[in-house]
Amino acid sequence: MKIIKTPQAMFSVINKLKSDNKSIGFIPTMGALHEGHLSLIRAARKENDYLVVSIFVNPAQFGPGEDFKRYPRPIKKDLEFCRREKVDFVFNPDPTSAYPKGFSTFVNVEGLSEVLCGKSRPGHFKGVATIVLKLFNIIQPDKAYFGQKDAQQVIIIKRMVRDLNLSVKIKVMPIFRDKTGLAMSSRNIYLSKKQRVDALVLSRALNLAGTMIKNGARDAKRIINAMSKLISRKESAVIDYIAITDTNSLGSVKKLSGSCLLALSVRIGKVRLIDNRKVYV
Amino acid sequence: MKIIKTPQAMFSVINKLKSDNKSIGFIPTMGALHEGHLSLIRAARKENDYLVVSIFVNPAQFGPGEDFKRYPRPIKKDLEFCRREKVDFVFNPDPTSAYPKGFSTFVNVEGLSEVLCGKSRPGHFKGVATIVLKLFNIIQPDKAYFGQKDAQQVIIIKRMVRDLNLSVKIKVMPIFRDKTGLAMSSRNIYLSKKQRVDALVLSRALNLAGTMIKNGARDAKRIINAMSKLISRKESAVIDYIAITDTNSLGSVKKLSGSCLLALSVRIGKVRLIDNRKVYV
Repeated sequence: MKIIKTPQAMFSVINKLKSDNKSIGFIPTMGALHEGHLSLIRAARKENDYLVVSIFVNPAQFGPGEDFKRYPRPIKKDLEFCRREKVDFVFNPDPTSAYPKGFSTFVNVEGLSEVLCGKSRPGHFKGVATIVLKLFNIIQPDKAYFGQKDAQQVIIIKRMVRDLNLSVKIKVMPIFRDKTGLAMSSRNIYLSKKQRVDALVLSRALNLAGTMIKNGARDAKRIINAMSKLISRKESAVIDYIAITDTNSLGSVKKLSGSCLLALSVRIGKVRLIDNRKVYV
Repeated sequence: MKIIKTPQAMFSVINKLKSDNKSIGFIPTMGALHEGHLSLIRAARKENDYLVVSIFVNPAQFGPGEDFKRYPRPIKKDLEFCRREKVDFVFNPDPTSAYPKGFSTFVNVEGLSEVLCGKSRPGHFKGVATIVLKLFNIIQPDKAYFGQKDAQQVIIIKRMVRDLNLSVKIKVMPIFRDKTGLAMSSRNIYLSKKQRVDALVLSRALNLAGTMIKNGARDAKRIINAMSKLISRKESAVIDYIAITDTNSLGSVKKLSGSCLLALSVRIGKVRLIDNRKVYV
């Protein structure tokens, strides 16, 4: 496994592989790798000749007052993790080579970026889209792998790929949950033991909604109210949003029909968590 | 010469050329081809195995009330022009294949896009950057050719290429002037015979500035005032801006030193014209 530190070095490695007609699978990450990433890496390992994992805590997607500085960076553990999974290249640039002096070009998927998580994290998805586009341009993958946990991110990246005529194929892997039902997230390490238990309200609220829908509920407001009520019982939980939307436009839905996304964000103490579930009715 | 109408068709032609290791030169145009374009095409013809010219009047770079609808579209003449110059592929998509339903992704080079022409044409350079990025992604050129006449556009595209880690090489060809000194522009056809003569104030003002600088003038304000005075003598001329800027940042300069850009935009009647000159002091 090679660790590559600059876009230029990564680019020339890739060009060599490309000229040999090798297929390239890519998993963009911010490190702090967990079982969720593992499922992406293993899927990618099967489907491509070469595998690139990027580890880069992207400053452009953190707002002021967010956790950029304290975001976990267990780089040694992450590299060991990648080595074990037979990753070929880890791209681990420093912020100044990713964002050189005078950097001023941003890509934004308008509309989709301002709702749900974008409402409480203005600029977040612009930062995500920009770094993902940069990484796609450097790594030129045939396939790139994302987790369904970040449902809005997936929808935004897919739209960007279509709109900008990118040739990469976006593959989405299901949410990976621990045995208690908590969705894997690098931010889970911020949770105390008690908070980790409280955090189960997110998946429980989604399960409740799932059961209601199975039993015939179609009124979004009624479902959201029930979820809200369940979550509010936990003292440490503060709801950021609970939404039922169209899976393409992220527009909110009044009566459920077809393919819908149930998505929510809840703060447990100071830790902002997200979870979601797709339903077909 | 092949005429290609959809991104998909263009993309598969290009992929074939790429897999044969052919080099691709690209000239993005809005059609209404003139001697300025000719110099780009001829330079590109020499330096590449295959040559793609795009002809697309890009709605995203026109503001409300601008000349999108009446912009000249002499497609037959343009195709004849390309055929004569041994262009291999003309990419001529229709707006709906370039901007499919739900299109919402835009790239913007912040800062550089809001000054000079960007001030009176808000959103213009966002539209330019977005279509150029899309075309680069479809055509994957080794080299792309732009005219120095659109100086701000060139600076913005170069910044975008650097910031987004694109591998295309940007080549800039000098302004092509007719024998009277008028910079070639597709919009010159809007000018009446008298206006065409009046339009010479742009190049004359740049010449005046050039002479002043040669004679030792370094104070930007003084040079701009002299240019302004010259232009104001023409009754049909309304100055949009006259600027002396740094050639990279487009920040305005007080005392000229090093490499500077003299740029101006003047309306002759209803026709907005631009011209510029680089100076080294």
